[in-house]
Amino acid sequence: MTTVISDVVDRHGCELLDADDPLASLRERFVLDESVIYMDGNSLGALPRATPPRLLHLISEEWGRGLIRSWTDAGWMEASERVGGKIARLIGAEPDEVLVADTTSVNLFKLVTAVLRARPDRRVLLTERDNFPTDLYVSAGVASSFADHEFRTVARESLEAAIDDEVALLTLTHVDYRTGEVHDMAALTEAAHRAGALVLWDLSHSAGALPLDVNACSADLAVGCGYKYLNGGPGAPAYLFVARRLQEALRNPIQGWLGHESPFALENEFRPAAGMRGWLVSSPSILAITALEVAVDLALEVDMQRVGEKARRLSELFIRLADSRLASHGFSVASPSDGARRGAQASLRHASGYGVVRALIDRGVIPDFRDPDVCRFGLAPLYTRYVDVWDTIDHIVAVMESGAYQDPGYAVRAFVT
Amino acid sequence: MTTVISDVVDRHGCELLDADDPLASLRERFVLDESVIYMDGNSLGALPRATPPRLLHLISEEWGRGLIRSWTDAGWMEASERVGGKIARLIGAEPDEVLVADTTSVNLFKLVTAVLRARPDRRVLLTERDNFPTDLYVSAGVASSFADHEFRTVARESLEAAIDDEVALLTLTHVDYRTGEVHDMAALTEAAHRAGALVLWDLSHSAGALPLDVNACSADLAVGCGYKYLNGGPGAPAYLFVARRLQEALRNPIQGWLGHESPFALENEFRPAAGMRGWLVSSPSILAITALEVAVDLALEVDMQRVGEKARRLSELFIRLADSRLASHGFSVASPSDGARRGAQASLRHASGYGVVRALIDRGVIPDFRDPDVCRFGLAPLYTRYVDVWDTIDHIVAVMESGAYQDPGYAVRAFVT
Repeated sequence: MTTVISDVVDRHGCELLDADDPLASLRERFVLDESVIYMDGNSLGALPRATPPRLLHLISEEWGRGLIRSWTDAGWMEASERVGGKIARLIGAEPDEVLVADTTSVNLFKLVTAVLRARPDRRVLLTERDNFPTDLYVSAGVASSFADHEFRTVARESLEAAIDDEVALLTLTHVDYRTGEVHDMAALTEAAHRAGALVLWDLSHSAGALPLDVNACSADLAVGCGYKYLNGGPGAPAYLFVARRLQEALRNPIQGWLGHESPFALENEFRPAAGMRGWLVSSPSILAITALEVAVDLALEVDMQRVGEKARRLSELFIRLADSRLASHGFSVASPSDGARRGAQASLRHASGYGVVRALIDRGVIPDFRDPDVCRFGLAPLYTRYVDVWDTIDHIVAVMESGAYQDPGYAVRAFVT
Repeated sequence: MTTVISDVVDRHGCELLDADDPLASLRERFVLDESVIYMDGNSLGALPRATPPRLLHLISEEWGRGLIRSWTDAGWMEASERVGGKIARLIGAEPDEVLVADTTSVNLFKLVTAVLRARPDRRVLLTERDNFPTDLYVSAGVASSFADHEFRTVARESLEAAIDDEVALLTLTHVDYRTGEVHDMAALTEAAHRAGALVLWDLSHSAGALPLDVNACSADLAVGCGYKYLNGGPGAPAYLFVARRLQEALRNPIQGWLGHESPFALENEFRPAAGMRGWLVSSPSILAITALEVAVDLALEVDMQRVGEKARRLSELFIRLADSRLASHGFSVASPSDGARRGAQASLRHASGYGVVRALIDRGVIPDFRDPDVCRFGLAPLYTRYVDVWDTIDHIVAVMESGAYQDPGYAVRAFVT
């Protein structure tokens, strides 16, 4: 990786970056239509080539022929803990601190509820005003279920100041979904701990795209989804992390049979399982968790430091090209210029952003759009090339010069996830 | 269906029943290994032949090529409501009263919490002492989260007497998982309504195997799983039913982004969606829900009255043969003799039941075992033949006569789901 991004002046320069890229060979491990430039891996990750044959085997052999026996014979029973243990390696946790279960929102609900119940002396649940919507909704719902709790939402820059000795839990999304801005996990966790508060990190927009070390940051709790940079498939199962030191004190509020100490004793009284298994509720979809495992296994082949480095370089290239070629078309860069504070995405603001994104999709370039004016370009380091960034900028210029973004067909909003 | 079950005296008689069976052709729509007799469709349903090609298309084309666009173009976005609407037809509900989401336990949690919050004047959550364990665990957990609520569990025969004007909600599993005994849904619902209580039915062991008509019974709420008689695959998504008249009054306690009135506006404030969509939390696994849809489509080809009739005849045959050929080996029948009160299963009690089940599995006959002494034989009407019942009884006799059930290897309990 000798080439300096600022030296790139043409597509050939990007080809040289790709030739130099130590992760370049990963791309062929994914199914990617060469007529499409996929810039939405931060919303739905691409399909690993290993997934269809693995799923076909699972369905036809393990389910079809093994039937109920596969719960033991094919390792289905341990899947939540096994895949959790693998994700642990991607986020800097121990294998017995991470479990795959339910969805991100349900896991958030379980953890936030557990903390508020465990700390009746503290009545504030704190978050950032522009946190990811589902994090806001779940948290607000939990806080409102307590008689006199306050759901305190403050502007990003006021977070540290808002952490006082009333705060039970600070819950934050590590990478902002609109701009890609990264919170300083270590610093905010430390600030919360100084005030006696716990911190829950939503890693949905980080894991698989950035190096993470929850334990080095002394993080308490985390959740994350499997379908973005982890490439687990649409609606893939989610995961949760509970630091070992907290596992005794916190209890899952949704008492399902698989979270029982002896699920197959089928006792009438609930006795919570020790450790992470206590956060299970019931059987995960084995189809879904197997697809996630294939993708996590692929991510584990790669050094996450290199992945993060490539994310920074891809987004730096995008931002530099946007500054030089798109500013005159009314675009401004919404992502941080400091690479250390930027996730694996680049976001642009434009008053006609929705039309721009629709016109790009019609040209086979797939970003997404977030109200009111954000065009998001996901730069998944496992399969995005430097030339993809160059070509995307070219397409944006073409969309602006042709006026295609003003197509009256784009006046009515269609669903863009 | 002219043959009377009591006339059957040999395997040939069972062959005649199969030849007469209006559902017989359904069996070839499933992948079934002819060297296995599968008697555990009440725990994990068999694989429909249509599932692998549909899933392969979903994975390779919709996910692999369509990528994020498939949320709109391939109908992923509506899957929860679409498949819910199909399940509605199997249980006697309207399409806008059923939604596929989360797991049975999480749906139970959502509904029980919602009812207790909506009815602060009533402090009792009532259920049957031997309800399915996860139903007990979830309900106990919810009740304990309220300051002064009582979780009242009573014996089956005392249920009606225990419904008083303190009861907010009666929650019951329609078919007992141990014995297959069926509750009288209409009568118990009416008794609850007379006392001003609501009723929630767990249909996990009924739907797909018995005719159901929740609206004819004036049922208020229901949940159910997708992986038993619905054949949706291991850990398939679950569903919930909320009668239209209650949809305004009850609110999902887990406020996730897909339950928002405008999920893609990504507003900071939660506004619950009207109707069943308000019970969504976040994206379902599209792999899992698609497998469920294939199986539900297959079930919808069949008249559920006929399915229930076959269930009754299969279990009657099983019980008659058990009475005549197994009683001398120490077995007693645990299932009701009245076919109208029996689900699609037959259960036997035996002091060495665990060894019997293990020995049967080693012979390729797959029932399951439930503590302390119950051998469960699932009789899924879509693919179980009358000869399978005959052959199973033959195998049980062989296991007893050979003493195979006393194999010391069966002394240590292995996991049997």
